[in-house]
Amino acid sequence: MPSDLYAVADFCLIPMGTGESSVAEYIAECQRVLEKSGLTFKVSMGNGYGTNLEGPWSEVSQAIHDCHTAVHAKGAPRVATDIRIGTRVDRDTPVGDGNDHKVKRVEEILARERAAAY
Amino acid sequence: MPSDLYAVADFCLIPMGTGESSVAEYIAECQRVLEKSGLTFKVSMGNGYGTNLEGPWSEVSQAIHDCHTAVHAKGAPRVATDIRIGTRVDRDTPVGDGNDHKVKRVEEILARERAAAY
Amino acid sequence: MPSDLYAVADFCLIPMGTGESSVAEYIAECQRVLEKSGLTFKVSMGNGYGTNLEGPWSEVSQAIHDCHTAVHAKGAPRVATDIRIGTRVDRDTPVGDGNDHKVKRVEEILARERAAAY
Amino acid sequence: MPSDLYAVADFCLIPMGTGESSVAEYIAECQRVLEKSGLTFKVSMGNGYGTNLEGPWSEVSQAIHDCHTAVHAKGAPRVATDIRIGTRVDRDTPVGDGNDHKVKRVEEILARERAAAY
Repeated sequence: MPSDLYAVADFCLIPMGTGESSVAEYIAECQRVLEKSGLTFKVSMGNGYGTNLEGPWSEVSQAIHDCHTAVHAKGAPRVATDIRIGTRVDRDTPVGDGNDHKVKRVEEILARERAAAY
Repeated sequence: MPSDLYAVADFCLIPMGTGESSVAEYIAECQRVLEKSGLTFKVSMGNGYGTNLEGPWSEVSQAIHDCHTAVHAKGAPRVATDIRIGTRVDRDTPVGDGNDHKVKRVEEILARERAAAY
Repeated sequence: MPSDLYAVADFCLIPMGTGESSVAEYIAECQRVLEKSGLTFKVSMGNGYGTNLEGPWSEVSQAIHDCHTAVHAKGAPRVATDIRIGTRVDRDTPVGDGNDHKVKRVEEILARERAAAY
Repeated sequence: MPSDLYAVADFCLIPMGTGESSVAEYIAECQRVLEKSGLTFKVSMGNGYGTNLEGPWSEVSQAIHDCHTAVHAKGAPRVATDIRIGTRVDRDTPVGDGNDHKVKRVEEILARERAAAY
């Protein structure tokens, strides 16, 4: 087992105590942090809540930490984040492809089933 | 305030005790349940963890409940789901557009900033 | 399978856009809503993030919805909640005891192991 | 701002693909890992879903990573965890007291209100 597990994550960060209900400026700030991290990430289309991120666990964690730092620096006294993070040892996760791969599997199953219905 | 708040959600369902590490068949099962619900949903591209779903709170909740029922019926003795759910009363959420809207706002901010850099 | 599955949940509600970093007043508001719901719940000791709640799925969902309504009424334009919710069909969950039961099992295992170490 | 923010977290780990619906053995394994970490943690009473953990962000993250490693080593091919993690820069968090503090504030508000009702 690697000493730094490969992690596929999805996180949702919420700035607190800002007095504004819009979070878009803060999320944009996070996106800049993630761009610098060099990790594979996606502010997911159709999913305003989650940002996908994957890579070695320690780097994924550091990137989210740095988003907190950036959002604090932008004025939020508190930041709360929900992180869903998964690791697996039963097969290699294609680097940078962990999240995409899972969606494709579901689509294949549904496509096969639709084909079988004819 | 409406008696049934409009909810923008993102959920991640995990079948437990199935003896298989793949969850794709179960997620496909959920997708069939969601198709029947008539709600706006998206098994998000690039996000194998979350399924976006929005509509009146009670219907969103019922649809996720019915995913549990379907996944139990398919053989999972336990099902654990993480739901991120948001409501707002400061503006109308465009029906079926709550999640898309949020992503667009972030993109506009980043685009404006990039333009300003030239 | 019951048409309304028994659910053991744990939720964390965050008022947004309030201009205050303290959330205690809002959480207290939720506690009042939960008291009226008649469901088994606990603002967990040692866990400022989660409130445990269990009962029929539809009632658990309704109670959390009503917390959102109460927190909006108290002035928060947006409310974001993370809900972890589980159901099982492999054994009956002792009513009002789903969360306690799980902790006890972990304690038994550790106690047994410590005893074995002597 | 410290380069390693103080984090108050609550996580819920789910072993996947184990063929058993009980997770108690795995959670006990995590508890052993956390005991070695030296961090403040609590497998919360009345909350079978969450384990509270707090300390410097990097150490909290490392401890959860090590739980994944331990659960994989015990046989789970996949592990999925939901982490709620918060940081704040508006006041010092009493070391090892971040979660307790929040619960106490809610209790004070409710007690004050009950007293006022007489």
